[in-house]
Amino acid sequence: MRLSRFFLPILKENPKEAEIVSHRLMLRAGMIRQEAAGIYAWLPLGFRVLKKIEQIVREEQDRSGALELLMPTLQLADLWRESGRYDAYGPEMLRIADRHKRELLYGPTNEEMITEIFRAYVKSYKNLPLNLYHIQWKFRDEQRPRFGVMRGREFLMKDAYSFDLNEAAARVAYNKMFVAYLRTFARMGLKAIPMRAETGPIGGDLSHEFIVLAETGESGVFINRDVLDLPVPGEDVDYNSDLTPIIKQWTSVYAATEDVHDAARFEQEVPADKRVNTRGIEVGQIFYFGTKYSEPMKAMVAGPDGVDVPIHGGSYGVGVSRLLGAIIEACHDDAGIKWPEAVAPFRVAILNLKQGDAAVDGACEKLYAELTAKGVDVLYDDTDQRAGAKFAAADLIGIPWQIMIGPKGLADGKIELKRRADGSRENLSPADVVARLVG
Amino acid sequence: MRLSRFFLPILKENPKEAEIVSHRLMLRAGMIRQEAAGIYAWLPLGFRVLKKIEQIVREEQDRSGALELLMPTLQLADLWRESGRYDAYGPEMLRIADRHKRELLYGPTNEEMITEIFRAYVKSYKNLPLNLYHIQWKFRDEQRPRFGVMRGREFLMKDAYSFDLNEAAARVAYNKMFVAYLRTFARMGLKAIPMRAETGPIGGDLSHEFIVLAETGESGVFINRDVLDLPVPGEDVDYNSDLTPIIKQWTSVYAATEDVHDAARFEQEVPADKRVNTRGIEVGQIFYFGTKYSEPMKAMVAGPDGVDVPIHGGSYGVGVSRLLGAIIEACHDDAGIKWPEAVAPFRVAILNLKQGDAAVDGACEKLYAELTAKGVDVLYDDTDQRAGAKFAAADLIGIPWQIMIGPKGLADGKIELKRRADGSRENLSPADVVARLVG
Repeated sequence: MRLSRFFLPILKENPKEAEIVSHRLMLRAGMIRQEAAGIYAWLPLGFRVLKKIEQIVREEQDRSGALELLMPTLQLADLWRESGRYDAYGPEMLRIADRHKRELLYGPTNEEMITEIFRAYVKSYKNLPLNLYHIQWKFRDEQRPRFGVMRGREFLMKDAYSFDLNEAAARVAYNKMFVAYLRTFARMGLKAIPMRAETGPIGGDLSHEFIVLAETGESGVFINRDVLDLPVPGEDVDYNSDLTPIIKQWTSVYAATEDVHDAARFEQEVPADKRVNTRGIEVGQIFYFGTKYSEPMKAMVAGPDGVDVPIHGGSYGVGVSRLLGAIIEACHDDAGIKWPEAVAPFRVAILNLKQGDAAVDGACEKLYAELTAKGVDVLYDDTDQRAGAKFAAADLIGIPWQIMIGPKGLADGKIELKRRADGSRENLSPADVVARLVG
Repeated sequence: MRLSRFFLPILKENPKEAEIVSHRLMLRAGMIRQEAAGIYAWLPLGFRVLKKIEQIVREEQDRSGALELLMPTLQLADLWRESGRYDAYGPEMLRIADRHKRELLYGPTNEEMITEIFRAYVKSYKNLPLNLYHIQWKFRDEQRPRFGVMRGREFLMKDAYSFDLNEAAARVAYNKMFVAYLRTFARMGLKAIPMRAETGPIGGDLSHEFIVLAETGESGVFINRDVLDLPVPGEDVDYNSDLTPIIKQWTSVYAATEDVHDAARFEQEVPADKRVNTRGIEVGQIFYFGTKYSEPMKAMVAGPDGVDVPIHGGSYGVGVSRLLGAIIEACHDDAGIKWPEAVAPFRVAILNLKQGDAAVDGACEKLYAELTAKGVDVLYDDTDQRAGAKFAAADLIGIPWQIMIGPKGLADGKIELKRRADGSRENLSPADVVARLVG
């Protein structure tokens, strides 16, 4: 992409309304624009990151055997009356009447609707296990939306729903999602720690939150430092095998949010030099809730003995849009964002340090064409800004690899390759740069 | 994908509520489920087609130089008061009050919001031309939603918005979208004919609808048969070149909806043996509306002379979810859907005609593994249904290539390859089938 043809409205001033660094950087980098309180438009740069995160989430859901569908944003109020949550949900639910005065709502989550879909079609245990997910916009009418996409009202969530014959089978489904989440967040360059959690309005008796450590996080967390070094399952993990050892490994090391923290146990179990009390950002949560929805909504299947039983369910959420904020909170410095490569809007930036100089233009164009042809996502800064502004912009928007091409280096056959993550720089020939980025 | 692990709730009975064939087939094939009047959930099979259509739309928008972003579904009422459309839009607009009694609406289209985004950042003609698009769910509260996804209330639309300094430049943008639309629909296996159209509530004085011919279509159309044979630009079309000759070629042959049909001109211009009066389905519409939004909303840029002028705009819609219905209306027979390959949910089905027979199971598994490894999208029917039911299901859901593997043929080293489009069948060795599908 040529920057001269891209739409990247970078802000020079720090926006006053932004209280936290991710919100500030997303506004300054031209990633989002607020359209109403807690409702954002995703400008092209932000949209690219959103799509990359969404795709990683999708690939790991698919790998685990979950099936993607897509439920609508609007739902019938009557569906929520069946589960008893319509009245219970409170003012965070956006309630709507259509032209015929039918009561609708903007879905904040989809347990009811997916249960309705399930019960319409599945009648036998033979069609289980089943795990259905979608990635769809949700709305929760927060009293005080803030922190940008971290606590927006309209937000993108991946929510999966598992259906099983009994608790043992449901725990197998739960474990698959647990492992899929470990992989999902690790692929994004995050250390997300599963922590035992309260179940809140979703209900049930088993839940883990996945928490990214960040000093700006919303919750206090207490962990044994060892949890940071646990291995994340590789892409060859066999989801049909017994995943219990992985779950045991991850849940046996102390890690808890302040809501469920047990100070006595923490001090007893964790050596003093390994106790960490910091803050974190929730990026996902998984629930096993048994028959909480299937009983009132009559989602029954015939078991092997022919008797109908309510299915055992779980739900599994990832805050897709919120993840942009969480990643930035975890990956930034004073100059801007430091995107992990897997979610970067562009992997490489080419900065033309003397636009209009025939040799420099030619070298930039050649490298841009070559990298693009090899499938590298390149943003080519071909604008007439001065070099300093180009450096600042590339750092602000967080491009992992930055290639600086100017007349001096070029005279020696060299261009500069900078790595955003650690600021390291090398002078290399264009061919070596290509080899480094493609090899 | 193994069918035993997929979620494909095929209906045996014809659903009573479906008045047209596409709606009937989408319900029977387990592609969609109605969740409220005009509001559908996309089950996994339907979702796969939706994503393929969306991706073709995206690739052709990107190729033309348009930039993708994503605006939220909910918008502020005040934004629509600026353009004067809040009161004018009528009962099709879904109006919503949030917990603080702020007036929102579920966007039926995005001219106002994109103009707001544009004016916030773009101040100079030097940043033009600009064409921004998104693919997002919209809501129009139809008085009487029907025909399934063809006239739903919550629907997926691609809408692009161009910004230019003057009318001449805006027409260049319009022409690019015209060509992109020709390519988009052709890639989906459709003959979509651009026809001069009324502008309706979007406004402006230049508009074309893209209409797929189908006897079940909602509008009468009059065309010169020659328009069916016009060439569609290839993927090497240069969007920076003058596209006027392509536009002239397509607009000089008579093609009009009944709304703007000119009977006298039709009879004068079109030889009697080339006059076709049939019906069609609108799948896209493009508009040039000049300063209709930029003037009231003050979207101004400084021209080369330093004087601020309102930009000239256009908008360009594709009915992404509606396209599934349109494609089925154009591509089906009594047995079911006949997906064009580019949008098929799976390109190939393997039908195991004797599940449990070691030789047949082995041959199916081997072929499934081989095709999958080569990147072919395969649905492997490994269920214990009888052969007849498998044939019927594969035809109903419209898989373009069907491979039948049974004990008899296998004894001769042959499997059967059937092409859904024309019903042709061949007996081939497994290696030849692979070569045919991958070659």
